[in-house]
Amino acid sequence: MGSTRMHRTFTPGWLAALLLAAVVAVAPAFAQSTAAGQNRVVMQVSDADPGKWNLALNNARNLQADLGAANVEIEIVAYGPGIGMLKADSVVGNRIGEALGSGVKVAACENTMRGQKLAKADMLSGISYVDAGVVEIMQRQQQGWAYLRP
Amino acid sequence: MGSTRMHRTFTPGWLAALLLAAVVAVAPAFAQSTAAGQNRVVMQVSDADPGKWNLALNNARNLQADLGAANVEIEIVAYGPGIGMLKADSVVGNRIGEALGSGVKVAACENTMRGQKLAKADMLSGISYVDAGVVEIMQRQQQGWAYLRP
Amino acid sequence: MGSTRMHRTFTPGWLAALLLAAVVAVAPAFAQSTAAGQNRVVMQVSDADPGKWNLALNNARNLQADLGAANVEIEIVAYGPGIGMLKADSVVGNRIGEALGSGVKVAACENTMRGQKLAKADMLSGISYVDAGVVEIMQRQQQGWAYLRP
Repeated sequence: MGSTRMHRTFTPGWLAALLLAAVVAVAPAFAQSTAAGQNRVVMQVSDADPGKWNLALNNARNLQADLGAANVEIEIVAYGPGIGMLKADSVVGNRIGEALGSGVKVAACENTMRGQKLAKADMLSGISYVDAGVVEIMQRQQQGWAYLRP
Repeated sequence: MGSTRMHRTFTPGWLAALLLAAVVAVAPAFAQSTAAGQNRVVMQVSDADPGKWNLALNNARNLQADLGAANVEIEIVAYGPGIGMLKADSVVGNRIGEALGSGVKVAACENTMRGQKLAKADMLSGISYVDAGVVEIMQRQQQGWAYLRP
Repeated sequence: MGSTRMHRTFTPGWLAALLLAAVVAVAPAFAQSTAAGQNRVVMQVSDADPGKWNLALNNARNLQADLGAANVEIEIVAYGPGIGMLKADSVVGNRIGEALGSGVKVAACENTMRGQKLAKADMLSGISYVDAGVVEIMQRQQQGWAYLRP
């Protein structure tokens, strides 16, 4: 009698698969917000003030100490008047090295570097670069990272 | 024999429609978080420091230069000691005019204005007003805007 | 004839229940982001500057005045050089008492206290304590709180 049916009936397994497919289909739209539960912090350094540079590095160290370095992603973005933090002659150069070694990402703004005629050769080694510090900080927040301005 | 069945069977199309309805039903609850992917930045200016005012304006200009002015919404909110940025005699008055012309929204806190006995006639033309700067900054973040404190 | 079928057919009610179950199953993952619509602000105090301490307290008061104290949750987190705001001899001690009385939560960083050899007996009464100020500020943002750095 199955031959007389044009439509088939569904087993629970069939339905479960369909529901799973639906969930998978909509998940990407929400990925950004669900990722907000992760431990991720973007720190802004935009002051020409070594005291602030040390505070930022202290904050990073405290986040790692409290949560475990493996359990928190930290990115320090230096731009504008804060770019001096990442120059080769920075007074916190050795601490930047330690931060990089512990897994902190440290990024310099290339917009700022152009404005101050700084080349990568003028900067600390091991750091990374972003086109525009403010865009990086905005995008990290869009991706669910917490924001911290030491 | 179909006449003997009290419950109907479902075609794949029927099921897909039901699943779609379910997704549509839950989507509004997540609208706010999905909107977080847009390029929107609220900037806080709360220092009586023309250096910070220029930094805020530089940051706005860099966001527009990097992303295209049409692709990023920017709102500068001045309040507390930062209100001087938007007074008619502000040292950055001409730059505020340029920012407004390029599509940046610039808002003064009316709470602060009352406290400092400032009327709209004392302020730069073309700016907008919000009841309370801190409420505006909170609400923009709730709406998914990134936060930047220059 | 039901006995001849190995698989059963589904009624609309059965399907609706399944869909509801699916929605309920995925909802917790999104709870954090949907909660972002609430009025909740975490304020960072990390400067050794009584002017900033007063600004933070002004901001809290303005949020409550504008939204109604019952309609906004506010938490002030003092850490690093800002810890002095919450010491027993703080110049804003009486204002902290008022803020606590109006429902503002005020938290001191125990990491900072250890570093400065401060015990709870050295601090204002009525305040609360967090292990690490920066972790608290990060987690509040993850929970959907807006961030404000006065």
